[in-house]
Amino acid sequence: MSHLIDENPEISEVDLNPVLVDQSGVMAVDVRVLLGEALPRAQSPWTQEQILRSMEKLLRPASIAVIGASAEAGKIGNSVLRNLVQGGYQGKIHPVNPKGGEILGLPCKRSVAEIDEEVDVAIFAIPAAAVPAGLEEIGRQGIPTAVLIPSGFAETGRADLQEQVQEVARRYGIRFLGPNIYGYYYTPDRVCATFCTPYDVRGPVALSSQSGGIGMAILGFARSANLGVSAIVGLGNKADVDEDDLLTFFEQDQATSCIAMHMEDLKDGRAFLDAARRVSPRKPVIVLKAGRTRAGARAARSHTGALAGDDRVYEDLLAQHGVVRAPGLREMLEYARALPAMPTPRGENVLIITGAGGSGVLLSDACVAEGLRLMTVPQDLDASFRKLIPPFGASGNPIDITGGEPPSTYRAAIDLGLRDPRVHALVIGYWHTIVTPPHVFAELAMEVVEAARRDGHSKPVVVSLAGDVEVEEAADLLFRHQIPAYPYTTETPVAVLGAKYRWARANHLIES
Amino acid sequence: MSHLIDENPEISEVDLNPVLVDQSGVMAVDVRVLLGEALPRAQSPWTQEQILRSMEKLLRPASIAVIGASAEAGKIGNSVLRNLVQGGYQGKIHPVNPKGGEILGLPCKRSVAEIDEEVDVAIFAIPAAAVPAGLEEIGRQGIPTAVLIPSGFAETGRADLQEQVQEVARRYGIRFLGPNIYGYYYTPDRVCATFCTPYDVRGPVALSSQSGGIGMAILGFARSANLGVSAIVGLGNKADVDEDDLLTFFEQDQATSCIAMHMEDLKDGRAFLDAARRVSPRKPVIVLKAGRTRAGARAARSHTGALAGDDRVYEDLLAQHGVVRAPGLREMLEYARALPAMPTPRGENVLIITGAGGSGVLLSDACVAEGLRLMTVPQDLDASFRKLIPPFGASGNPIDITGGEPPSTYRAAIDLGLRDPRVHALVIGYWHTIVTPPHVFAELAMEVVEAARRDGHSKPVVVSLAGDVEVEEAADLLFRHQIPAYPYTTETPVAVLGAKYRWARANHLIES
Repeated sequence: MSHLIDENPEISEVDLNPVLVDQSGVMAVDVRVLLGEALPRAQSPWTQEQILRSMEKLLRPASIAVIGASAEAGKIGNSVLRNLVQGGYQGKIHPVNPKGGEILGLPCKRSVAEIDEEVDVAIFAIPAAAVPAGLEEIGRQGIPTAVLIPSGFAETGRADLQEQVQEVARRYGIRFLGPNIYGYYYTPDRVCATFCTPYDVRGPVALSSQSGGIGMAILGFARSANLGVSAIVGLGNKADVDEDDLLTFFEQDQATSCIAMHMEDLKDGRAFLDAARRVSPRKPVIVLKAGRTRAGARAARSHTGALAGDDRVYEDLLAQHGVVRAPGLREMLEYARALPAMPTPRGENVLIITGAGGSGVLLSDACVAEGLRLMTVPQDLDASFRKLIPPFGASGNPIDITGGEPPSTYRAAIDLGLRDPRVHALVIGYWHTIVTPPHVFAELAMEVVEAARRDGHSKPVVVSLAGDVEVEEAADLLFRHQIPAYPYTTETPVAVLGAKYRWARANHLIES
Repeated sequence: MSHLIDENPEISEVDLNPVLVDQSGVMAVDVRVLLGEALPRAQSPWTQEQILRSMEKLLRPASIAVIGASAEAGKIGNSVLRNLVQGGYQGKIHPVNPKGGEILGLPCKRSVAEIDEEVDVAIFAIPAAAVPAGLEEIGRQGIPTAVLIPSGFAETGRADLQEQVQEVARRYGIRFLGPNIYGYYYTPDRVCATFCTPYDVRGPVALSSQSGGIGMAILGFARSANLGVSAIVGLGNKADVDEDDLLTFFEQDQATSCIAMHMEDLKDGRAFLDAARRVSPRKPVIVLKAGRTRAGARAARSHTGALAGDDRVYEDLLAQHGVVRAPGLREMLEYARALPAMPTPRGENVLIITGAGGSGVLLSDACVAEGLRLMTVPQDLDASFRKLIPPFGASGNPIDITGGEPPSTYRAAIDLGLRDPRVHALVIGYWHTIVTPPHVFAELAMEVVEAARRDGHSKPVVVSLAGDVEVEEAADLLFRHQIPAYPYTTETPVAVLGAKYRWARANHLIES
């Protein structure tokens, strides 16, 4: 074994499992060898500082030029300009169109050269073929960054055009997003540099996607769930700006405390992993890696030309670098919504408190499936719970307070769990009854959690709500108060708690 | 091996995996032995015909007595009576309360003996301790079935009281639901024999739950998703009526075409499996088996006293008998909603047609994860698709029609997939654009699917919708037209299609 590794320095990891040992010797039944260079590696010509400065210009511009601005409704150059204006962007906006005139009340320049002020970013809403020349123009003008919305590059077989764009950008030192993207949102500055519908609900989550479809799904989910975001960024063909550039920006962005990224490939795996390892201990990095199966990888290749890579390599490396991987789109969105709402757990002890015994069973199953540890409740704590619940309720874990209990029992049981330092996270199963209706439960849960937090007892609390449709409103109310809560499911609350724990463990923030 | 099995007739199955073969011989690394008697078995004293007759009386009564009917709002005996009256039940209702008088305009009998008409079912809304005597009374009166709502039996340590109830019932030949349940709904006859809120959206799905909390989650999900149900039945402690009794009823119930059951244990595993094998080829049987993990099983034991059993035994046996197992509560609900909406696929060839390349990648991943076969598109069919989509779109599987396409492209591509007999199921990825907005897409998809169905091209079609919140309405519209559709997820549409395929395969309805 040691010979093998000595002679093959590219081997970074060897996994033997299972290994059979008997009188005749040792035999490995399955062997997996991981090569260190399995991920693509690129050499960025930029220093961290340069990247950060460019990303600041790109995502928080003081002034914007819209190349191909149009007065005609339905055109991309019209939608982008309208979204910027109506979105409430406070910087300077310069529409550019050879026809000149005025659009949406703004004087329209015939060319970039006519703009006599400094411009931080140029949004391109012109056909692909015209992009290289346009980029030359902004390069000559000294505009440092660009957003290339048009499609018609590598994804449609025009790799040549994309290379031409890269060549021009390199020559002028222009950093650019895209091509083939919907644009981006940065809510703290009210930038809606996109042809999609505007979005302005501010919050701690930054999201990126390589696909426009996924970008629209992010937008719809966000609006539907009232998810507060700092940024939504389209990356498309990633001919220049990549996930690691975005991570470098979000790392220091005060508005962002959690980052979720949909990707089909990594152009520079090493740079991404380095950035992720740096960022993720403070700001969870969630990745939805599309193309995890062979069929998916084939689809990715014909979609963005992505070389999806061996999924097991991604699996291992992402986990090693503190990244939380989401198994699917919906999970990425749910993790992104819930992770910032939960404080970091201080240990592995998870306790279930439930009004519905049936939910308790399913919540237990879900905890095991998510790799969570259902704590053994110490005798003294168990005795304290016993005092609160009816004699036929079940203590242990889950604590089953039983369904007919009034608000005071929920309140006392949750409070006890919150304030005992041996409990590190709470999973609550609520059962809709006339005695404790949904809004009453939501309010008491909020109060008791907030009071405990004020007293320094801050731990993740997630809620599963079993009941009639009123529980939907209760879930919204709880979520607004940093308590992830979900109706009609025992799986999702435990899944987001599981993701929080995977993040905390991978970043060595708790003893496991 | 054959010796082992000869000498141990209780062995029903042996699984060797992996097996190593080399010059020195054969070695099984892991062996699993399944004993035939692993599931609990009981001897029902009833014939199928008797069971069916009792269940007819219980679930479709011509007249109902409410034992413990009350005029006092908030009391269970009041809620049950009000739900029956306001739910629109057309049979005779007899409130029974020693105080007599009138409740909700109905004359109240002082005792069951005062009722001088035939009664099919007695709903008990009196304290547990009074149930045995009450049961004696209805037995003497010849009332054949009962619904025991009260708790306070085996689940609170009063196994003795439960046995007493069973003894009385046995003596009089009474069949009963419960105890410790919310009651039941049977929508075709507008029976809301429950203290929960009424529900009247009729449809093909019958659901049962062992837990009241899960029952409330079923109710809330149903109302929220506008899920049409034939019945929702609480089983609770299952001291008499069990899942197999319900299956015998639903098997012949014209209103029911799909059955979903939440269970913590099986009192009579053999009877359930026999019934499931009989029913499931025509009416899918979905099971959420709670307590699948050791922690969950422990919780189930203290909840309903359920002996959850070895989960791998359930896993194997359920699949062998054609049952679709749901991994969690939300999946059970989603399967129950979607399975009746899909025709049985005629083969394994699944085709993805997508407007969003990014969705195509994730849908491919999901198909592989769900064990679906992404068909290799025959050359002539591929050529036909190529004619419909832009030159830079991707043919193959997924078919990527690209995002900027008008409704006509979606229409033509879906129609082609629907009418080619080599394609057995369609997964559609929609991308919200100005050119093809959500409601336009939903309407064209509906039209083209319905036209194809009229022409005999009936196959499962599921849709993933990526877009802004308008896609939620589009999803509802599609679902109402038997096209399961989901916003902001690429996983759920494929998961329900996967469940349909598992059902079809397990029941030998397609060649695999």
